[in-house]
Amino acid sequence: MDLSRLGEAGFVDALVRRHRRAFLPPPHGPGDDAAVLGRSLVTTDALIEDVHFRATEPPFLIGRKSLAVNLSDIAAMGGRPEAFVVALGLPSGLPARFLRALVDGLADGAAEAGVRWIGGDTVRSPRGVVIAITAIGRRGRRILTRQGARPGDGVYVSGPLGASAAGRLLLEAGFSWNPAGAAGPPGRRIDPAARREAAELLRAHLDPRPRLAAGWFLASKGVASAATDLSDGLSVDLRRLCHASGVGARIEREAIPVSQATRAWARRRRRDALDLALHGGEDYELLFTVPRRREPLLARWPKDSGAGPLLIGRITARRQGLRIARPDGRTEPIPPLGYDPFRPGRRVDTP
Amino acid sequence: MDLSRLGEAGFVDALVRRHRRAFLPPPHGPGDDAAVLGRSLVTTDALIEDVHFRATEPPFLIGRKSLAVNLSDIAAMGGRPEAFVVALGLPSGLPARFLRALVDGLADGAAEAGVRWIGGDTVRSPRGVVIAITAIGRRGRRILTRQGARPGDGVYVSGPLGASAAGRLLLEAGFSWNPAGAAGPPGRRIDPAARREAAELLRAHLDPRPRLAAGWFLASKGVASAATDLSDGLSVDLRRLCHASGVGARIEREAIPVSQATRAWARRRRRDALDLALHGGEDYELLFTVPRRREPLLARWPKDSGAGPLLIGRITARRQGLRIARPDGRTEPIPPLGYDPFRPGRRVDTP
Repeated sequence: MDLSRLGEAGFVDALVRRHRRAFLPPPHGPGDDAAVLGRSLVTTDALIEDVHFRATEPPFLIGRKSLAVNLSDIAAMGGRPEAFVVALGLPSGLPARFLRALVDGLADGAAEAGVRWIGGDTVRSPRGVVIAITAIGRRGRRILTRQGARPGDGVYVSGPLGASAAGRLLLEAGFSWNPAGAAGPPGRRIDPAARREAAELLRAHLDPRPRLAAGWFLASKGVASAATDLSDGLSVDLRRLCHASGVGARIEREAIPVSQATRAWARRRRRDALDLALHGGEDYELLFTVPRRREPLLARWPKDSGAGPLLIGRITARRQGLRIARPDGRTEPIPPLGYDPFRPGRRVDTP
Repeated sequence: MDLSRLGEAGFVDALVRRHRRAFLPPPHGPGDDAAVLGRSLVTTDALIEDVHFRATEPPFLIGRKSLAVNLSDIAAMGGRPEAFVVALGLPSGLPARFLRALVDGLADGAAEAGVRWIGGDTVRSPRGVVIAITAIGRRGRRILTRQGARPGDGVYVSGPLGASAAGRLLLEAGFSWNPAGAAGPPGRRIDPAARREAAELLRAHLDPRPRLAAGWFLASKGVASAATDLSDGLSVDLRRLCHASGVGARIEREAIPVSQATRAWARRRRRDALDLALHGGEDYELLFTVPRRREPLLARWPKDSGAGPLLIGRITARRQGLRIARPDGRTEPIPPLGYDPFRPGRRVDTP
């Protein structure tokens, strides 16, 4: 038995079962986006070379993204990030230029979010760069967990989905990004429209923006009943939220937001844009539920924190499971095909 | 220019200079064993396969040690550890048995220290295990930093040095450890005395005990003027403490504590035990300074937190530098030959 058989969820489940007495239930122990420790929220996320990024990506953006994915977890709990520490594993031959840009990206993301870089550790990592960040935030009076969704609640996302997955596929196809825009694979010319479209998709993948103002709004104004961030794909993250809340959900296929660039790209590559939006992952938008009587409060959504609240479905009773509905009303189950780090390309066991 | 030219201290210095406005001075920013964030202490340390441990070491002890080195940083600031998060990078083919024992070791160390495992992240790491831990503690009314040492203060360590380095050399020579004791390299028989001695040295390396009660005592009773933990070797860690405090130090060669097992082993291998104690590293004892008028308070040293306070020298004026004295009173400079992760085996630029 090894990890590729167990999968991430299987391993984490086994771990928590094995040490049940050591772990408090979430949100004070493992199992939600961040852990509550007194008045603080704590979360950790590691990024590994050739798994989460490639050395050919712009190191400034690798730095920004490493921090962003951690801040996204604080946002999903409705907290305000305060500080972070970073453990860097670095090959000794790593060019100082790469490292400087990586560090600049971390500092830039920190300044943008108003968080303090309070410490770290630098260790040698002979086989590739490792960036392990722990972010600490302050919880508000209310916190957002995955546990409060009730049948009838609206299911929302904070912005369009699938662009990040399209950007990842572009990188794999040899596209690259620089501050001036996108470039095609070496030796291949692309027209200006395709260049702009590629730049948007690459940016979604390489430079996600944590929805901090949105998370704080949803928690502090008592708007959302449950929330999580979309890191592993809507199909997986929605399932986790529903499992934690003991509910089902019905998502309207036509309501899932997909950007023009993602649609155009998918059409040209003969890929299913909905598939990217459901299962692609790394969107780093918020997924949250809102009781009907509080839905009017969404009018006060903060500026500049994602596209805004986008209704994609309703919470149902648990026994109805997770279903996606076509315009004609027919529904089918949503398979959990998002991301499991130990079984890429295979069905994800959630939670 | 790459990291092997810069060294760790060179890189960290350059980083802090480059982002001066982003970093508060220690202890609220990088530069001490842990960072102070409100009433909390935060520290992070990563362990990388084939750098900090080998897959052939007992995974239970790898887990315990990963946590211990973080708790040691909290101890060095005089705090009480409360909780930790761990980001695990794992190859997908990693045997579940290894992982289970690693997790058991983390949980065991946590239970022993009374800290809560509040969260984590598991990611795929194609080229070896990565364990990145962030520990969070509560600061006492007073904290210990590296900055308060004054000329005349006594220089102390909490226990004998060099055993961990001897243990590391034993591992490199093919010795192994299991709960029943030590075993020699395959095919080589060793006598029971050598086996007991090897077990002690291997244990010092594989299972260091963070000096939590000692750190809390030194801070809360206002005993120590400065402190740090001994992770990179006395020659390096003392230099960092002296630099932060703006002082020098004179260490008595004969006062540096070295255990019987370390001495016996060094004699047999024709190695210099003092060299191991000065430069070997990974002792995870506390190094601290105490003003003369408070030295009597050391009589109340807590039980079971290292061997006790062991006087090794006195703080001097900065201009006198770091010197080690022979019994006849002649002194020589202490070269910084401890551990730099990016330049193993070379002189360490400190701080």
